[in-house]
Amino acid sequence: MQNFTFHNPTKIIFGKNTIGQLGGEAKPYGKKAILVYGQGAIKKNGVYEQAVASLKSAGIEFVEYSGVRANPVLSHTREGIRLAKSEKADFIAAVGGGSVIDEAKAICAGACESHDVWDFYTGQATPERALPLVAVLTVAATGTEMNGGTVITNEETKEKFGWGNPILAPKVSILDPTTTFSIGAAYTAYAAVDSVTHLLEGYFTSNDPNTILQDRYVEGVVRSIIDVTETMIQKPDDYEARATFMWAATLAWNSISPCGIGAWSTPNHLIGHSMSALFDTPHGASLSIALSGWLPWYTEQGAAQVRQLAQLGKAVFDITESSPNHAAESTIEALRNWFRRIKSPTKLADINVDASGMEAIAENVEMSTPHWRLPDYNKARVINILKRCR
Amino acid sequence: MQNFTFHNPTKIIFGKNTIGQLGGEAKPYGKKAILVYGQGAIKKNGVYEQAVASLKSAGIEFVEYSGVRANPVLSHTREGIRLAKSEKADFIAAVGGGSVIDEAKAICAGACESHDVWDFYTGQATPERALPLVAVLTVAATGTEMNGGTVITNEETKEKFGWGNPILAPKVSILDPTTTFSIGAAYTAYAAVDSVTHLLEGYFTSNDPNTILQDRYVEGVVRSIIDVTETMIQKPDDYEARATFMWAATLAWNSISPCGIGAWSTPNHLIGHSMSALFDTPHGASLSIALSGWLPWYTEQGAAQVRQLAQLGKAVFDITESSPNHAAESTIEALRNWFRRIKSPTKLADINVDASGMEAIAENVEMSTPHWRLPDYNKARVINILKRCR
Repeated sequence: MQNFTFHNPTKIIFGKNTIGQLGGEAKPYGKKAILVYGQGAIKKNGVYEQAVASLKSAGIEFVEYSGVRANPVLSHTREGIRLAKSEKADFIAAVGGGSVIDEAKAICAGACESHDVWDFYTGQATPERALPLVAVLTVAATGTEMNGGTVITNEETKEKFGWGNPILAPKVSILDPTTTFSIGAAYTAYAAVDSVTHLLEGYFTSNDPNTILQDRYVEGVVRSIIDVTETMIQKPDDYEARATFMWAATLAWNSISPCGIGAWSTPNHLIGHSMSALFDTPHGASLSIALSGWLPWYTEQGAAQVRQLAQLGKAVFDITESSPNHAAESTIEALRNWFRRIKSPTKLADINVDASGMEAIAENVEMSTPHWRLPDYNKARVINILKRCR
Repeated sequence: MQNFTFHNPTKIIFGKNTIGQLGGEAKPYGKKAILVYGQGAIKKNGVYEQAVASLKSAGIEFVEYSGVRANPVLSHTREGIRLAKSEKADFIAAVGGGSVIDEAKAICAGACESHDVWDFYTGQATPERALPLVAVLTVAATGTEMNGGTVITNEETKEKFGWGNPILAPKVSILDPTTTFSIGAAYTAYAAVDSVTHLLEGYFTSNDPNTILQDRYVEGVVRSIIDVTETMIQKPDDYEARATFMWAATLAWNSISPCGIGAWSTPNHLIGHSMSALFDTPHGASLSIALSGWLPWYTEQGAAQVRQLAQLGKAVFDITESSPNHAAESTIEALRNWFRRIKSPTKLADINVDASGMEAIAENVEMSTPHWRLPDYNKARVINILKRCR
């Protein structure tokens, strides 16, 4: 096990009828907020009304800033920062999914600086401070509700970059699983894939045989997510399935699972980000494609990798084949079959990307590799990986 | 799944050669500390020197307060509070195991109030504030390094009581697994039993079939602990085993595992505390006795309970018997066999307690039940449970 530091001060309020706590929880952070949200879905399911009523009853004045896109973009973020500055906001209240909270984090940091917010994403600047953030999460998936990470896309340069800093972590996040009842089948599936990918990228980041505790943690959360995803799709208002997934998605990416595994080495989010930056592919959809190709490529790297796949298959899919190679193959196929059952794509053709598109993705990955500090994912290797998608 | 709030702001610094960070991490909390430690074990393994050197190099003045006992007692705690007040300490630095940190928490709270510190333990008072606490953990077991709980014993009334408040959570805890190399076989075993009991008490606290995520979490951490305990006993300086256990013990009791399971209902710590209060039984030793009797009693409560035992046995011990009743029995026996292998007692005779001692324990439990807010553990039922220990 490698040395690590873990520090996650976000307060989580989880369960039914919890959005009414927003105002009271936000009050310590000031009197004036920018209320950031997306395309208006929260006005259809009652979340907007609950959040606004709670802020008002706590005496908090706020200015609305809506229109955050599913892959949030730099131009809209810059506009939000201008608003936060001109309104002299004390804090940001974000109500929505991962995109809304990610953009809100950028506004929190950018509102305290005079330079362009993209400088944080390129690593040219590090924030000393940020406005406090309180959040109501309405789409479980990215884990942003309980970490200091943020990812946005620069539309001009076609770069989807991320960065993290503990000061960006929400002070409090409210998670009411009933708010996710209205998420459709496709995005429910993509959310599950996103969370599973967070976990598996850590699982495969090293071959250290002494991360048994981390391995068991990942296996347990992955298995739980797979156990409930089809129920969520078939019965969108199944509270227990939605609740299990919502908490699982947080536990998948709140910095616990990577403790002790060393520096990140897996490229699936990187490949997915390039796909999204070029083709606006939904984040989760890009990840099932990436994993579908990367896992077989990874398995070819050695016996230790094969054993890892076999171990995962046993823990998550009850695969008990005695040959490690066969077990590894069955594990990959079981995962792909899960993607297919929940209708998350497994190959580029599923999202209408052809060979030239594959080249463009691989070039974008190569360009982005230094930003994500990942080893050895050049154009040729990425094409090699993407050709294995099926 | 039940509603819950999770908030755990403790910063964990984990790994080899990390104690030197104590001074730098403590500096934001003031210039003068009380350095709390136990019976002097930290002077034999180099931990004391490292901690003291780090505090000094950060310019922190400190007064030493040693002598904390393995089951920390109220009289020594009161003395520590007097010292913290007279020295006008800014914060407390605790270096040691769970007992040292638990007593240090009591000193943190008591030093800010004029009333007796025991009032917190009896629920007659709730603190508004506490001195900040920084900790170096040298015995993994209780999880106190990352929670707001504290347990001490009132020697006069023979009450071993606990309470918790988020303001007691250490600001930072440093966990260097090498500091645990010097822990002997018995206390290594008791520590493992303590952590496993934390997890299993939550696991069995409800029969809710919709806590699959929580179940997988517990199964994974329990299995990891059982996987490494005998290695720790046989090779005390096995870094990987010690590291796995140290982080597992934190994850076992840092408030994650009970999220969503509802109000606590299991009595093993309660029974153990009574045993320790009356017979000074080591905490972990009392728990293997309690579990050894409580699990068969619990299994008799119904089919859902039997299924839970069978599920645990499959996940932790690879027990695959098709009859749930047989699987449940085998699970209990597998756990008892693990206790026996690591030489943690499974019955009262192992700690030289006779039938009148059993009566006394059961009476003490009945008296303590209201304090721990547990249902229905009266004297007759506790005797019924303790008779099943074997």
